[in-house]
Amino acid sequence: MEHPAQQTRTFFDAIDSPADLRTLDIHELKFVCAEMREFLIDTVAKTGGHLGAGLGTVELAVAMHYAFDTPRDRIVWDVGHQAYPHKLLTGRKSRFHTLRQFGGISGFLKRKESEYDVMGAGHASTSISAALGIAAARDFQKQSYKVAAVIGDGSMTGGMVYEAMNNCGVLKKDIIVVLNDNQMSISPNVWSLANHFNELVASPTYNRFRNNIWELAGHFDHLGDRFRRVASKLEGGIKAVLTPGMLFEALGFRYFGPINGHNIVSLVHLFKEVQQWSGPILVHVVTQKGKGYEPAEKDGMNLHGVNPFDKITGKSPKTKDALPAITSVFGNALVEIARENPKVVGITAAMLSGTGLDLLQAALPDRCYDVGIAEQHAVTFAAGLATEGFVPVVAIYSTFLQRAYDQIIHDVAIQDLPVVFAVDRGGLVGADGPTHHGSFDLSYLRVIPGLVLMAPADEQELRDMLFTAVEHGHGPVALRYPRGTGTGMQLRPGFQRLPIGKGVVMQEGHDLAILAVGSMVASVTKAAALLENSGIHPTVVNMRFIKPLDTDLLDDIFARHRYVLTVEDNSRIGGFGSAVAEYLSSVPAHQHVSLRVHGLPDAFVEHGTQEELYRSIDLDPLGIARTALAHMGAEVETISADS
Amino acid sequence: MEHPAQQTRTFFDAIDSPADLRTLDIHELKFVCAEMREFLIDTVAKTGGHLGAGLGTVELAVAMHYAFDTPRDRIVWDVGHQAYPHKLLTGRKSRFHTLRQFGGISGFLKRKESEYDVMGAGHASTSISAALGIAAARDFQKQSYKVAAVIGDGSMTGGMVYEAMNNCGVLKKDIIVVLNDNQMSISPNVWSLANHFNELVASPTYNRFRNNIWELAGHFDHLGDRFRRVASKLEGGIKAVLTPGMLFEALGFRYFGPINGHNIVSLVHLFKEVQQWSGPILVHVVTQKGKGYEPAEKDGMNLHGVNPFDKITGKSPKTKDALPAITSVFGNALVEIARENPKVVGITAAMLSGTGLDLLQAALPDRCYDVGIAEQHAVTFAAGLATEGFVPVVAIYSTFLQRAYDQIIHDVAIQDLPVVFAVDRGGLVGADGPTHHGSFDLSYLRVIPGLVLMAPADEQELRDMLFTAVEHGHGPVALRYPRGTGTGMQLRPGFQRLPIGKGVVMQEGHDLAILAVGSMVASVTKAAALLENSGIHPTVVNMRFIKPLDTDLLDDIFARHRYVLTVEDNSRIGGFGSAVAEYLSSVPAHQHVSLRVHGLPDAFVEHGTQEELYRSIDLDPLGIARTALAHMGAEVETISADS
Repeated sequence: MEHPAQQTRTFFDAIDSPADLRTLDIHELKFVCAEMREFLIDTVAKTGGHLGAGLGTVELAVAMHYAFDTPRDRIVWDVGHQAYPHKLLTGRKSRFHTLRQFGGISGFLKRKESEYDVMGAGHASTSISAALGIAAARDFQKQSYKVAAVIGDGSMTGGMVYEAMNNCGVLKKDIIVVLNDNQMSISPNVWSLANHFNELVASPTYNRFRNNIWELAGHFDHLGDRFRRVASKLEGGIKAVLTPGMLFEALGFRYFGPINGHNIVSLVHLFKEVQQWSGPILVHVVTQKGKGYEPAEKDGMNLHGVNPFDKITGKSPKTKDALPAITSVFGNALVEIARENPKVVGITAAMLSGTGLDLLQAALPDRCYDVGIAEQHAVTFAAGLATEGFVPVVAIYSTFLQRAYDQIIHDVAIQDLPVVFAVDRGGLVGADGPTHHGSFDLSYLRVIPGLVLMAPADEQELRDMLFTAVEHGHGPVALRYPRGTGTGMQLRPGFQRLPIGKGVVMQEGHDLAILAVGSMVASVTKAAALLENSGIHPTVVNMRFIKPLDTDLLDDIFARHRYVLTVEDNSRIGGFGSAVAEYLSSVPAHQHVSLRVHGLPDAFVEHGTQEELYRSIDLDPLGIARTALAHMGAEVETISADS
Repeated sequence: MEHPAQQTRTFFDAIDSPADLRTLDIHELKFVCAEMREFLIDTVAKTGGHLGAGLGTVELAVAMHYAFDTPRDRIVWDVGHQAYPHKLLTGRKSRFHTLRQFGGISGFLKRKESEYDVMGAGHASTSISAALGIAAARDFQKQSYKVAAVIGDGSMTGGMVYEAMNNCGVLKKDIIVVLNDNQMSISPNVWSLANHFNELVASPTYNRFRNNIWELAGHFDHLGDRFRRVASKLEGGIKAVLTPGMLFEALGFRYFGPINGHNIVSLVHLFKEVQQWSGPILVHVVTQKGKGYEPAEKDGMNLHGVNPFDKITGKSPKTKDALPAITSVFGNALVEIARENPKVVGITAAMLSGTGLDLLQAALPDRCYDVGIAEQHAVTFAAGLATEGFVPVVAIYSTFLQRAYDQIIHDVAIQDLPVVFAVDRGGLVGADGPTHHGSFDLSYLRVIPGLVLMAPADEQELRDMLFTAVEHGHGPVALRYPRGTGTGMQLRPGFQRLPIGKGVVMQEGHDLAILAVGSMVASVTKAAALLENSGIHPTVVNMRFIKPLDTDLLDDIFARHRYVLTVEDNSRIGGFGSAVAEYLSSVPAHQHVSLRVHGLPDAFVEHGTQEELYRSIDLDPLGIARTALAHMGAEVETISADS
């Protein structure tokens, strides 16, 4: 297959930086866009990644880098899905085929990667806050560069956008917010204003009416200037109600738009124009996700996040691994439980399919809420439901649940309300990298009083833990599981309630005990096999619960083992191993035990495949086995994957 | 002094529940209000508490409990400062003199306290989310009760309000949001819309113009019905721009108001009226903080949170303890540092005086930002400043920083940006209770890669740590200190940069080592004196840094001591002691050491004075000494506070 970079693209190939772009005539930009779009499709077809959003922002990125003097002018891109064209324009074209690969370029914005990535991103809704900070810094230094934030409509449900816009309205700094409105959040129909927009956008009524009002104003000469002032305000009012600017003008922004986000010439003119204005400005750009690539335009989700695919059909080949995603095991279990228990409802924050709640949505649509990118609200909304006897299951990725940390403590735990947290994407997630790894949840959740925290070792346990959590009856219960496929094991029909805080011994040995939680149980089991091959006989324990900790079982294990290794796909700090260390140190009778806590390093892990990443930090079976041997003081060389 | 409850108050005394209230004629309610206001002032003059907000909501609370059928109808009060009148109406009058006292009633909403407190609160901006959850539960059960949220304008800067209102607009549930607009956030001038409100409220232009427009519409007969439809929309537009309803109507709310929040009869009529409407409704009530009590009306902060005071003058007697608040030591140090270093800016989230940033505001107003109750934005705004070479010092209470957990990780730590977190109110805060205790910060911050985490033992160290943090140059640095007064020590002029990750031995001993951080160093020093009196000679260490941990010093301590006790005013889980346990367990050479981790229990601690609370959980000097002895296996009876 021909490498896309090898094809000749007259305009696109000549651009290594925005400065190159700015040597072109405005009417040549459309060729850049066409060629870039082709390059994008060719490359992402091979690498996988987030295609739809990038296809929608080709003209936007070209227009902005053409109209603004980057990198002197600062453009802050929200999230990053929409930033592929920006990456291509800013020196990362030749490395674009390494997108999201181990050692390659990131799928998101990243300061270390380019001076044009003025602010890293991966989570939504942060760009306006960051841009306002940059604008404040500019004004301190009496500089004059422009600061813009580009934010997708999907990010507009996040509360911090409103916090930031409110603060813009108060500080009145020169800042340009570009709303990239592709009328498509990550899942549709969650943004109230979007409905408002859809009703009003492109209404011919507005312009006609505006003219009428000014004509009419002539009839009120007896009211004089005062009338004209009011009429001017009135025009603002009409404009507000007849265009989508209402909210933004209320917040102190000057509103421009909506403008067609695929008309490169208009975009450039508008971006030149708004640079002449001062104060907070909102430019409303309407784009089409997947623009210019038929399979993406036609797909309901516009190829939001994709595996490598066939360029002609837009279809991805079936992956060789046909095991069910853990997420869908969860989704199916929730549907089964919700059918039996009318008090169970599901809540997600813009991640219906990502969390498997699409299955509940399909089966029991009334019992499933997608609140948009609004994790804080999701949790407190759940707390409200719980006060009335419902059992909400809040399914949020580990990394995004960080957004709702206070709500878990303040609105759920302090009030001892029965809310279940289905914490998906715990551990390393792979290609999405450090902004998306679920590295900290066991630590930040474990400290919360009254919270039950568990991690299933396989699909069966996931089902049973979900059932156990729903039946628990008071206080927060979190179950935390990784991204990926399950074991494909045969699932027992129905559900079994697990005893809270009780682990299980998987394998009896004597040389050392390896205690694991969640997905690490499978890795440890494989590590144990490697150790057995080397003549070491480990005890393997699936602790199941991080909190409450099974101290009876620990007492038993400590009594019988000198060497103990804990293994988790969470930071080594404050998580499962830390809990074991706390307990161990508290019991003088166990002083003979030598403990080693193994888990994610105290560092941000980069992107790559999950397999590559876990291998790189010794959390694959071989790394675990070697760590066990090292802990015992044995020769690490005695073991290998082949042994 | 006469007990306020002993005075005769004809109407107020007869009311033990909202049902009693509803037996009165609407025109008798004003007497209830007058008597309640008097009772409130009398009581809070003795107990201290949050007075201004409650005085502003007397009529609102009476009107709502009169117009709504509570507890069948659900009223969710935001935060709780405004909820004192609600508490008085719902069976807590006789216990009101125990407000905020150990074993007494809470200063906030609390589910365990009353069935009328349908949702606990203490942090801002949660009420609409919770109310929407309750409304969803109601609709599931096909019930018909009303659900209302009462939220102050100060809470309206919090992003989760917007998340919730957006979701209300999407779900279109019957819900009544009462905006209690006292035109006063906790610190003024942070809410952009408030300016918008002030411009537009009570404008006579609106009604005149509305009539004009309809007259004019008559001239456009040739446009027929279509014109009228648009004109109807236009009327909405005029109303939107000429009244404060703009934002709320854009979000799908039907807007009523503004209404005078001290006219009890109008309020009752309006609350009866809006019950007839469906969908999301916003009632805009304008109240005056401190209403009816001259000293409160005149005070700039309207006696927001107060100590006991003289009823006539409104002044609190000087507390016997004239030591400087730790907060003001911080505030002064920041001013000194900022004067020398032009890159330093201060950021607070609606807590200018609470955090001591009012001193910076006064000294260098351009270098101080109050972003409103918007912790998420505060942190990412700081990150933006940091990308341009500034060193933002973000001063937020420990418990509120939980709101910005994701932003600390995602926008600061992953990007290794130099942002300093001044984490005030770490540990138990006293009368504000479990929603406000800073019990978890050492745990939730310690897990963040690259973050430096320290806690000063006294005012001098606070100054030096702030300086050290500002000079650190990369990545997040948090210094965490308690509510309260310092030691009153003589402060060295200037600042000294402390070595990162190095602790200091305060006192050499041999029987055991007590390792402490932050304010616990002083308590441990006192505990050590008690132990010395009993013939036990402890080593006392001020570790200073929770992260990085001074492992060299620990090696030395472990080598010389069998018994080690860690002491912190953070949860025993995942914090400082946990870090020591993790390290201890990792070094086989230290297996002789018996460690005990002492700190806050794994439970939510209730309210009371700090002294009472610490004593109740053995974190006062005596409790620490006893814990040390118990850990050594010595007789606890051998020690007492007198020895």
